[in-house]
Amino acid sequence: SRKFHRTVMAKSKFEYVKSFEADDKILQNCWIVVRIDGKNFHKFANTHNFEKPNDIRSLNLMNFAAGCVMKEFNEIIIAYGQSDEYSFVFHRTANVYNRRASKIVSNVNSLFTSSFVFYWNRWFGDQKLQYPPCFDARYVLYPTTENLKDYLSWRQADVHINNLYNTCFWNLVLKKGLTNVEAEEKLRGTVSSDKNELLFSEFGINYNKLPAMYRKGTILLTKQIKIDESRTRKIAIPIYDDLIKEKFWKEHDELLLRKA
Amino acid sequence: SRKFHRTVMAKSKFEYVKSFEADDKILQNCWIVVRIDGKNFHKFANTHNFEKPNDIRSLNLMNFAAGCVMKEFNEIIIAYGQSDEYSFVFHRTANVYNRRASKIVSNVNSLFTSSFVFYWNRWFGDQKLQYPPCFDARYVLYPTTENLKDYLSWRQADVHINNLYNTCFWNLVLKKGLTNVEAEEKLRGTVSSDKNELLFSEFGINYNKLPAMYRKGTILLTKQIKIDESRTRKIAIPIYDDLIKEKFWKEHDELLLRKA
Amino acid sequence: SRKFHRTVMAKSKFEYVKSFEADDKILQNCWIVVRIDGKNFHKFANTHNFEKPNDIRSLNLMNFAAGCVMKEFNEIIIAYGQSDEYSFVFHRTANVYNRRASKIVSNVNSLFTSSFVFYWNRWFGDQKLQYPPCFDARYVLYPTTENLKDYLSWRQADVHINNLYNTCFWNLVLKKGLTNVEAEEKLRGTVSSDKNELLFSEFGINYNKLPAMYRKGTILLTKQIKIDESRTRKIAIPIYDDLIKEKFWKEHDELLLRKA
Amino acid sequence: SRKFHRTVMAKSKFEYVKSFEADDKILQNCWIVVRIDGKNFHKFANTHNFEKPNDIRSLNLMNFAAGCVMKEFNEIIIAYGQSDEYSFVFHRTANVYNRRASKIVSNVNSLFTSSFVFYWNRWFGDQKLQYPPCFDARYVLYPTTENLKDYLSWRQADVHINNLYNTCFWNLVLKKGLTNVEAEEKLRGTVSSDKNELLFSEFGINYNKLPAMYRKGTILLTKQIKIDESRTRKIAIPIYDDLIKEKFWKEHDELLLRKA
Repeated sequence: SRKFHRTVMAKSKFEYVKSFEADDKILQNCWIVVRIDGKNFHKFANTHNFEKPNDIRSLNLMNFAAGCVMKEFNEIIIAYGQSDEYSFVFHRTANVYNRRASKIVSNVNSLFTSSFVFYWNRWFGDQKLQYPPCFDARYVLYPTTENLKDYLSWRQADVHINNLYNTCFWNLVLKKGLTNVEAEEKLRGTVSSDKNELLFSEFGINYNKLPAMYRKGTILLTKQIKIDESRTRKIAIPIYDDLIKEKFWKEHDELLLRKA
Repeated sequence: SRKFHRTVMAKSKFEYVKSFEADDKILQNCWIVVRIDGKNFHKFANTHNFEKPNDIRSLNLMNFAAGCVMKEFNEIIIAYGQSDEYSFVFHRTANVYNRRASKIVSNVNSLFTSSFVFYWNRWFGDQKLQYPPCFDARYVLYPTTENLKDYLSWRQADVHINNLYNTCFWNLVLKKGLTNVEAEEKLRGTVSSDKNELLFSEFGINYNKLPAMYRKGTILLTKQIKIDESRTRKIAIPIYDDLIKEKFWKEHDELLLRKA
Repeated sequence: SRKFHRTVMAKSKFEYVKSFEADDKILQNCWIVVRIDGKNFHKFANTHNFEKPNDIRSLNLMNFAAGCVMKEFNEIIIAYGQSDEYSFVFHRTANVYNRRASKIVSNVNSLFTSSFVFYWNRWFGDQKLQYPPCFDARYVLYPTTENLKDYLSWRQADVHINNLYNTCFWNLVLKKGLTNVEAEEKLRGTVSSDKNELLFSEFGINYNKLPAMYRKGTILLTKQIKIDESRTRKIAIPIYDDLIKEKFWKEHDELLLRKA
Repeated sequence: SRKFHRTVMAKSKFEYVKSFEADDKILQNCWIVVRIDGKNFHKFANTHNFEKPNDIRSLNLMNFAAGCVMKEFNEIIIAYGQSDEYSFVFHRTANVYNRRASKIVSNVNSLFTSSFVFYWNRWFGDQKLQYPPCFDARYVLYPTTENLKDYLSWRQADVHINNLYNTCFWNLVLKKGLTNVEAEEKLRGTVSSDKNELLFSEFGINYNKLPAMYRKGTILLTKQIKIDESRTRKIAIPIYDDLIKEKFWKEHDELLLRKA
């Protein structure tokens, strides 16, 4: 709120309505995941001529907007994005807004949305933004580190499955001229190895050589980097790693430690 | 989410993490108020050279963004804005998103934020937006119509008190050259009639002749207007009325009726 | 808790665990219904040789235990019981335990259970209580008086349907010697008028002449009665009325009024 | 509920009121502590001539009633009681009542209350129960094993502090004839070692030789014991141990393990 100046005043007789606000403090010592998700992005992607199956401008913009959120909230230890969704993990000891759920979720969501629109031109250039996009948001709690890792693994497993499918689908449609229905039919019942084989034999594509960002989604971590002799700045670093494997967590074991 | 194509697939072993999401369905038959509020707008106003005590560009932009929200959610029966905050009232029978709180709040907030940034230039022209603004959001429930009216009256009483104070304050600072501290001191302990008198005697300002939007805030109602013979379009109409008085509700008695 | 004496002491390092308790304050200005319900009372009824279809000792004991609850909580305006369940309605303005849900629900439930066991002998005489009975409890909120009346009507409609069925069923089993399965089969698909006719033609029973407590359940209201010239005492009065009809609420219009 | 027989029937027009019940499913994978607490037990203790500072009959009855609860809910892994309160710990994987909070809390509380009244005579003999006692109940969640242990340690540290104080207080009052106020004054500002010294020098009491149940409270664990060659029975075993020390948890390391 913008209260330039305050004055003590008699409470109005209407002020009792404040007592209807519910307390929504989040349980202590749980990992807090805030996940934002594009609303009706199928249409949004079509309107803005997104490349299929992946539009690198859109992914870069998503990553950049997520970086803006991470820089604002220093208790976010890791963020993970794919397609039109992003998950932000607040450390289990986080105390921002005294852990009030609505404050945390709405601020993350609003800043993400705002940054997405504000920085649109930086990534999309001549492709003008046609209308205001919208993201929904929710939070989920995870009591243990194992649960949290499984959450992130769930999202990364999801991107793998979707991207492999979409890569096949759009190659069939765009390069072979199949209709959407024909492409769906061709892919029905196929397993991962079938799809890898199809990409290689029909399109000469080695799926594992495709950009890691498409196959793995984007992990954002923050780092302090040196600007000059005396100053550092916090930046969000994108990583395209496999976080389902324990190796990732060993290499970044500082992420989950209890903060001092 | 943007799921171009779906395929049936084996559930991954990580999928259990979905069961940690809590149900947040809102109690039936309560009025739902979603209030959004600018984050750190004191700084935002200074950065963007807002006129004091009221910046008409900012108020118009707030109203326009709120109108975008109202057009999207047809169960919002009234919205009320002042300064950097806006309240949206969903009808007690609203069923959007099956009354899931996080969906309702986050979508309203994100669309408002997005519209605020997207339409910035339309109102601010050469004054470029310097950084992505942020709004928080929450919801409050009101079981009775009386409670709901009192909520809106509370917000409108608030704008009256703040605006009268701010009008005095900024006239003292900008026209009389008082420092902020001196202006605060001069106003300490004054009641409404003192402030009205001060404005009139020192600045020739009849407070009640100032624009109603500044004194009353903005009420948004939606109307179907005729575009041509066969088509209508829904638009959000701003009204600068006194909703604390019962007269307002009598003139708009259709607002609170149970929907068919 | 029983704290005979208190002493100021250093907070232990374990005391932080208190901060994990969630606030569970109930939304203002809603009617609060606490409903208790016997756990596994089919078995309990068999073990204690309850008469079928209604055991008057059990119903009287339920009513008496409910009266103990009403006398303890003066913001309960009405209670309604049938079979092994009881609903207690706290006035929408109730402020007991600062409207903390767990306090309200657990105290009502515990006092009901305790009274049920404590006063067992008064109603069951030689039929000894064989094991500790158990009741669960929950609360439900109703924003409007109409919703509240519909809740109570729902419970009373339920007792009508169940009791008519059970009266037929047990007469067929106990007087005609049908097996449970045969009785169920005979009643399958019958409507109310069929059942009334069956009771009359086969057993000479005019259903509407059966005790109102069986057919309507028990409404409890509290009244101040005079003990002598100077003293009054609050007692819970059982009423076997039709609360689905508006007539009941007109005759007791003081119940729903806002308290001073 | 006691539904002897069911019949398919048209939903009544009142049935919509069921949709006002809120979902209260407890977050997965958290330890669930249900704590019951005597209501106004200061008065209850006086009415029933409880011995001061500890009434062994009351403590035994509390323990026995808690044992009844443990036998009913096999997902309770440990219970801890002191004075007029008892805490029941459901395993983090517990799934009873599909983790619905109101079901869990109300059933534990009602069964405890019911058992307390039902078994009163077994422990109090000629001292008749004068009126129905009441216990409130709540639940608290703990995400980690460390938090859970700290919760139990908090309750055990509490009994130590209270019992040492009460032992001094009542010896001063009952053996030295001090008034309550005089006794309080004498104890004001004393630390543990002062109180130990006072008990020893003035009353010849070695505090550490007093019954462990008074000093440590009661830990209840369940064990399967052999009745004969082929059958086992679950019983609740009281232990008067120091659970603040890690040693306790090492000796009972099976308690906290994930269930199969």
